[in-house]
Amino acid sequence: MRLISFEQHGRVGTGLVDPSGRTVSRLCAADGTSPTMLDLVRSAGAPASVAAEPQDATPIEDVTVLAPFPSLLRNIICVGKNYRAHAAEFEASGFDSSSQSEVVPQFPVFFTKGSNTVIADGAPIPASSDTTNSVDYEGELCVVVGRKGRNIAPGQALDHVFGYTLINDVTSRVLQGQHKQWFLGKNLDGFCPMGPALVTRDEIPDVEALRLTTHVNGELRQSAALSDLLFDIPTLIATLSAQITLEPGDIIATGTPQGVGIGFKPPRYLRPGDTVTIRVDGIGTLSNPVR
Amino acid sequence: MRLISFEQHGRVGTGLVDPSGRTVSRLCAADGTSPTMLDLVRSAGAPASVAAEPQDATPIEDVTVLAPFPSLLRNIICVGKNYRAHAAEFEASGFDSSSQSEVVPQFPVFFTKGSNTVIADGAPIPASSDTTNSVDYEGELCVVVGRKGRNIAPGQALDHVFGYTLINDVTSRVLQGQHKQWFLGKNLDGFCPMGPALVTRDEIPDVEALRLTTHVNGELRQSAALSDLLFDIPTLIATLSAQITLEPGDIIATGTPQGVGIGFKPPRYLRPGDTVTIRVDGIGTLSNPVR
Repeated sequence: MRLISFEQHGRVGTGLVDPSGRTVSRLCAADGTSPTMLDLVRSAGAPASVAAEPQDATPIEDVTVLAPFPSLLRNIICVGKNYRAHAAEFEASGFDSSSQSEVVPQFPVFFTKGSNTVIADGAPIPASSDTTNSVDYEGELCVVVGRKGRNIAPGQALDHVFGYTLINDVTSRVLQGQHKQWFLGKNLDGFCPMGPALVTRDEIPDVEALRLTTHVNGELRQSAALSDLLFDIPTLIATLSAQITLEPGDIIATGTPQGVGIGFKPPRYLRPGDTVTIRVDGIGTLSNPVR
Repeated sequence: MRLISFEQHGRVGTGLVDPSGRTVSRLCAADGTSPTMLDLVRSAGAPASVAAEPQDATPIEDVTVLAPFPSLLRNIICVGKNYRAHAAEFEASGFDSSSQSEVVPQFPVFFTKGSNTVIADGAPIPASSDTTNSVDYEGELCVVVGRKGRNIAPGQALDHVFGYTLINDVTSRVLQGQHKQWFLGKNLDGFCPMGPALVTRDEIPDVEALRLTTHVNGELRQSAALSDLLFDIPTLIATLSAQITLEPGDIIATGTPQGVGIGFKPPRYLRPGDTVTIRVDGIGTLSNPVR
């Protein structure tokens, strides 16, 4: 299933997009209510258990597509330096306040992004709100947790995955460096485009067989196989759930590959008028203008 | 007002504690519903606007006191290294993965703690779940945001404060160091005792005139004037809100003073059977056994 959050006639809900991508059908529960994506994931736990029924199909251009999770269960859990070549470019940039001469991390590096950062596909990234003028893109695949778990073994990890979506982990590099811990530099309002859809796990037989690309104004900047993750999805889920009970609706962003703006000398920061487009075949295309 | 979240006869709600601390009165809205603390803060915005009315008083020992916010709007925003002497002891401990020879930070260092960490006054801290056996305490004053705001000037910051509470920012020092960014080492389930009460701002004419103490098994470990904060409360609110729209119900933990376990040589980690007690006169006493 390709699921979106959307609004039509003032009513927010979750919709099933048809395979052509041209229409969307609102999912309704038995009592006629229209569950949010978070409601749906929490009540179903797994794609096969989604009980809500699609209603009449509407042309997708007649609805407003929202981020898959317009409000979050809790902050998105993000992973830093999770591709070898990106870890090296970030270290070389001088912006890595946590490096201590460790280029490739021995343990995954986790931080979070709050609900204030989330915007939809197509919504403008408010780069001009960063007074340090150092706004950078990071294309990332996200895992959406479907089934609650603690101490999840790597071999069982994918059973806890409901589906996948994309984010752009937009970052103010100067704030990221100044404040040492990365929270503030990555949490400016609107600094996390997400979507456009949540694609359920059953649609993607082998997510690590896919490639992620990021284009800025049509120019290819990032291109990596998801099999290049230093800590793969089962390892991330096992590592987190060894300490934290993962809950349905939790979102784990898996990190960004080489090719971010600070990988260039001089850095190529985002400017108003730019467009950033992140793509993973089978999952979707997330494209946002910069304002 | 001294407000608690509590449960009685299976019904969770918010209660007003009488000045003696002996009784609690459930707050009910005009329609008879019993708002959660988050509902109450979001609807009131400021202590003077609390419209819910207290019902009959109950002896406090007849209710189960919960953390003031049993579920969070979003992750607690925490500040690291916000007392000069603590910044120095942390640097000297070798566990600071973000220091780069900067002892006293030039800019506040922010990270977050998720809802899975929150436990009530009196609930056991599950230290034995940290397989690295390096669990440490951090007594901290928290600010609860009451009024939404962006770009809040320091001079207006306190107008956005609804009240104060306490947390113990429990930390696995080995995980904090290994994972570089501090999220994982500070986000083990149950690693954030909070409370016992939310004390509204109108009760505390000058919060920085107060002292914070932490005792472990009755031994004084931390004792500091809140006036010793490197970045004071107005500065923290101004710095955060320059990037992030603060919302009613957001919680900002202001950092911990000198005297944590890793400040000793060798470190004095928490062990099952210990009790950690954090106190700020006028705000409360947060005491938790270690399991």
